[in-house]
Amino acid sequence: MENKYLEIAIKQAKKAYKKNEIPVGCVIVKNDTIISYGYNCKEKRKKATMHAEIVAINRACKKLKSWRLDDCVLYVTLEPCMMCLGAIFESRIKYVYFGTKYKGKQMFDLGECHNITFIDLKNKECAKLLTNFFTNKRKK
Amino acid sequence: MENKYLEIAIKQAKKAYKKNEIPVGCVIVKNDTIISYGYNCKEKRKKATMHAEIVAINRACKKLKSWRLDDCVLYVTLEPCMMCLGAIFESRIKYVYFGTKYKGKQMFDLGECHNITFIDLKNKECAKLLTNFFTNKRKK
Repeated sequence: MENKYLEIAIKQAKKAYKKNEIPVGCVIVKNDTIISYGYNCKEKRKKATMHAEIVAINRACKKLKSWRLDDCVLYVTLEPCMMCLGAIFESRIKYVYFGTKYKGKQMFDLGECHNITFIDLKNKECAKLLTNFFTNKRKK
Repeated sequence: MENKYLEIAIKQAKKAYKKNEIPVGCVIVKNDTIISYGYNCKEKRKKATMHAEIVAINRACKKLKSWRLDDCVLYVTLEPCMMCLGAIFESRIKYVYFGTKYKGKQMFDLGECHNITFIDLKNKECAKLLTNFFTNKRKK
């Protein structure tokens, strides 16, 4: 499924890919305006918390001068991990669109997360980016 | 139960209290040496992610120049929330000592978290700090 904001998140994911980071990208939108971007930069920044969603949430908070992102919508190329899910919850974001699900069993059941609506956009490019990345990693 | 590192985490929590932040403090230890501290500063920093554990994990990563905190032990005055639990997991910390549990139902079941050992120190001061904070908040 195509989605203009997911497309921008995919561009972010591609930036991560080029820098040899797991390719995940994120965009935060408010009133149909992009508030912040982010891509996974855990390796480069040498910080366990630097997933795409956390980078984008931190930037959105800075831009809006508030930890409350109530009216924001988050687009991310991959289903959020537990940390990012918690950060989404803490920032009061209510809608999350994601590009693809984890291949294995997700550690955390999204269904358990109250007051957040998750929409799986089933985007093939998001899945392919990740598959290509890990296939190339294994070859090296 | 007394614990020298938890006592230092309590000092961090008290710093948060003085700044009108929910009083939670954290200390990360490696080889019996303190690597980093942190206290909750979500309101002051206006960032949803600025819980005590995230602050301490970010600082520990910076200090050790690595996102891997395998050999570190985390001490925190309150049972971690989902975001912090995820960050602990992402940073590969294996042992978490916490001062007190949430009064209500914890959103996430610690038992579900693989490869991390949680130890409840049942410290009364940690619980009292939080109770006092919220009692005073309600009075105002």
